[in-house]
Amino acid sequence: MTAYTVQQLAELVAGKVEGDASRRVEGVASVDRAGPTDVTFVVDARYAQRLGPRSVGACLIAPDMQMEANGTAYIRVESPELAFSKLLGVFHPEHRPDPGVHPTAIVGRGSRIGADASIGPYVTIGEDTVIGSGTQVGPNTHIDDDVVIGQDCRIGPGCTILHDTAVGNRVRIYTGVRLGVDGFGYTPGADGLMRIPQVGRCIIHDDVEIGANCTVDRGALGDTVIGQGTKIDNLVHVAHNAAIGENCIIVAQAGIAGSVEMGAGTHVGGQAGVSGHLSIGPGARIAGQAGVFGDIPAGETYSGYPARPHRESLRASALTLRLPELFRRLVRLERRLDGEGE
Amino acid sequence: MTAYTVQQLAELVAGKVEGDASRRVEGVASVDRAGPTDVTFVVDARYAQRLGPRSVGACLIAPDMQMEANGTAYIRVESPELAFSKLLGVFHPEHRPDPGVHPTAIVGRGSRIGADASIGPYVTIGEDTVIGSGTQVGPNTHIDDDVVIGQDCRIGPGCTILHDTAVGNRVRIYTGVRLGVDGFGYTPGADGLMRIPQVGRCIIHDDVEIGANCTVDRGALGDTVIGQGTKIDNLVHVAHNAAIGENCIIVAQAGIAGSVEMGAGTHVGGQAGVSGHLSIGPGARIAGQAGVFGDIPAGETYSGYPARPHRESLRASALTLRLPELFRRLVRLERRLDGEGE
Amino acid sequence: MTAYTVQQLAELVAGKVEGDASRRVEGVASVDRAGPTDVTFVVDARYAQRLGPRSVGACLIAPDMQMEANGTAYIRVESPELAFSKLLGVFHPEHRPDPGVHPTAIVGRGSRIGADASIGPYVTIGEDTVIGSGTQVGPNTHIDDDVVIGQDCRIGPGCTILHDTAVGNRVRIYTGVRLGVDGFGYTPGADGLMRIPQVGRCIIHDDVEIGANCTVDRGALGDTVIGQGTKIDNLVHVAHNAAIGENCIIVAQAGIAGSVEMGAGTHVGGQAGVSGHLSIGPGARIAGQAGVFGDIPAGETYSGYPARPHRESLRASALTLRLPELFRRLVRLERRLDGEGE
Repeated sequence: MTAYTVQQLAELVAGKVEGDASRRVEGVASVDRAGPTDVTFVVDARYAQRLGPRSVGACLIAPDMQMEANGTAYIRVESPELAFSKLLGVFHPEHRPDPGVHPTAIVGRGSRIGADASIGPYVTIGEDTVIGSGTQVGPNTHIDDDVVIGQDCRIGPGCTILHDTAVGNRVRIYTGVRLGVDGFGYTPGADGLMRIPQVGRCIIHDDVEIGANCTVDRGALGDTVIGQGTKIDNLVHVAHNAAIGENCIIVAQAGIAGSVEMGAGTHVGGQAGVSGHLSIGPGARIAGQAGVFGDIPAGETYSGYPARPHRESLRASALTLRLPELFRRLVRLERRLDGEGE
Repeated sequence: MTAYTVQQLAELVAGKVEGDASRRVEGVASVDRAGPTDVTFVVDARYAQRLGPRSVGACLIAPDMQMEANGTAYIRVESPELAFSKLLGVFHPEHRPDPGVHPTAIVGRGSRIGADASIGPYVTIGEDTVIGSGTQVGPNTHIDDDVVIGQDCRIGPGCTILHDTAVGNRVRIYTGVRLGVDGFGYTPGADGLMRIPQVGRCIIHDDVEIGANCTVDRGALGDTVIGQGTKIDNLVHVAHNAAIGENCIIVAQAGIAGSVEMGAGTHVGGQAGVSGHLSIGPGARIAGQAGVFGDIPAGETYSGYPARPHRESLRASALTLRLPELFRRLVRLERRLDGEGE
Repeated sequence: MTAYTVQQLAELVAGKVEGDASRRVEGVASVDRAGPTDVTFVVDARYAQRLGPRSVGACLIAPDMQMEANGTAYIRVESPELAFSKLLGVFHPEHRPDPGVHPTAIVGRGSRIGADASIGPYVTIGEDTVIGSGTQVGPNTHIDDDVVIGQDCRIGPGCTILHDTAVGNRVRIYTGVRLGVDGFGYTPGADGLMRIPQVGRCIIHDDVEIGANCTVDRGALGDTVIGQGTKIDNLVHVAHNAAIGENCIIVAQAGIAGSVEMGAGTHVGGQAGVSGHLSIGPGARIAGQAGVFGDIPAGETYSGYPARPHRESLRASALTLRLPELFRRLVRLERRLDGEGE
């Protein structure tokens, strides 16, 4: 493992050293586990307490933190969290496979692979598909016909990207993701349910991340869209014609039904579900496991089943627990009235 | 893109033209987006209003609809939705890979591949497996030993169909589906939980569709069965020995536990869960996110957690929101009685 | 199919024959379906009733069961269930692929494959990875760099095991599982959400089983750990830095959020969710679909949303259904008081 001086680290994160700038740092660690050759970070008094009197290799601290002089080299930065995140990448650089198309990859007619792209073994790429420069495609992934993938994307192993899907730049598609799946649309016909052909597209904008084993349907007629910068955790389902705004956060196992319109900056908790054709305002927050059956205004926090404003849900939930007491008090009143009536 | 005259389209859907039968149509579009060379459809006055005074290429209308003469060529049909669905397939025909076994596919001893079947690159097929004529198997899919797959099926890329699974005709298995997985069965033994060998089969009947990344277990001793015509959305789990009837609809992320018996025509909402060994009557409807812990009679609609008749759930849910008011009224009564007692 | 005498079966399960020890048994069957050449098992009077007067090939019975003499050969054993489970494996032995590395498998520099291991077609293995003896890896699976997998494991087809993951002995990873996925960690930066590099590991201990299409994240800084003997059903998500104890049972589609500490022997029901950073005591039971938002003490059973002690949940749930009655009784009281006030 490479080692750095505190001075070198401070330069990487545009910080100011207080202490021994020549101290040698060999790794990153959480505040609870950091030792004499680790860099860690402290954002507030609680973190400082967890660090205690230990002398660690280096410690990133916020502009206003007062720390004890105990041999630790402090690096004062605007945001210790961001700086620490950057140093994580410095000490643990992501593996970059060699550029080029692996000899076992199969690339269809008319498809173009960008410079410095890396296409792994047993990848299959259809016809007339374009893959941007610097993009990595993991082993055993299938990319269909007429797909466009931008630059510097990472597509994991074992993914499927179906025809006419468009993926922006710097997008991360984790292993096992399925993009552009036929949506769930049927109409009653003479011989039972008839499949409605799904002819829309699946559009993933720049800087999106989609977690392992997620599924994103193509549109029925129009498009399914994931807005720029949105991050999606594992095992999430996004149905046909959903339009997810920019910079949303969707936690694991949540489900977004068809034609949902979700504004920018919305947070969706784990295992939450949003019913079809609803409108979720920008900046809304949906709690974990919430079942959303109606529109949510911008900036509001909803929870429960059916989901309602969080404060209402909390109050109803608390009072539900007091139902036994409520029944007892009611019976007592009835008895008193009966007694008085005698 | 191929173009058609209105007359040609009318013949394809057995409709009657009212207007310019020679008008040229180049695509399909929803009523909100249809332009002068698109065919769309209108089922009622609300749709007609969304179409407004626009003249579009062609418009499929129901037998009793009155439309304005504005240059649009109308095609009168029994069911505009079904006719439109058919035209979607005409304008966007599904890609059919060339028939034949890709040279990189590995087919085990004793396995037979039907005429016109298409086996994609890097597919692996075990021994003594039969794949029917016209069936397509996508890249990187694994089909195990002793599997039988019928005719004209579409198996997506990256699927796994495990040993002794039987799949009917015209079945669609979307990408990432796992069929015939060992069920979740353990029994306490001397060294902790012992796996109970799962020796039953997984049986998928004709015209079933199973969405991306679903899992269907094999039976423990008997079989897990998905009835004819049933449609299953993405990320659904069906456990060992479940018997799903014909023409059911199971929406994304629902879970059907072991040995559930589900009658024909049942609808299961997204993220709903049905506990083990329950009996769900034919035509029952289970709302999204419902948690079913007891049998459901035929034709009934259940919702909530624990699920109960939808009307009861709705009433309880509405009154739960009024609990703060209820407590206030109770306190007022107690005060009045106390006051009177003074 | 191989046949056995009742005597042979009795020896395999260390049981004592009562009846015709030379009777020939050709298969295993449930008590409801067992015929004259099947072995089945009976644990109590209810099972005996389901068997009825039928004479079956052989029947495993508990030490204290009294059965009718009707030609059935009884095998008396300590645990009929365990013995039956063993015989299931005798009559349906698991397919073992031939040992060796398939010529299409790609094994990176520095990786070592144990004796008798079986590496299937189109498997890709990174660099400096170790796979123990007797371990089977199914087709199309990708194992990354610096992974260690123990002995006698079964890794299904189409799995992904990412870098620095460690898997113990006798572990079963079912098809489509993703291990060592980057956790869901972001921090606000100048250009929107910044990914926090996930540099911890994913550690799977001996005898663990992980169901189809599950996802297990690597740790952010420390490790994600699944304890010895724990069994996980299909489509479960385990987030970064979760520490799952030994011999836990986690049913399908459950979700365990980041940094959860779960004690040994905990049961998590299907579709249940456990929020981040919670502590679940050993032996706790979490009901299906429960939404856990607080710590759970050892041995306690929790259910509902938000989850609380099961008895409380049940009572609150029952009284919620009586809310219409409660409102009626309240109104009656108000009227009586108003009447008295007149």
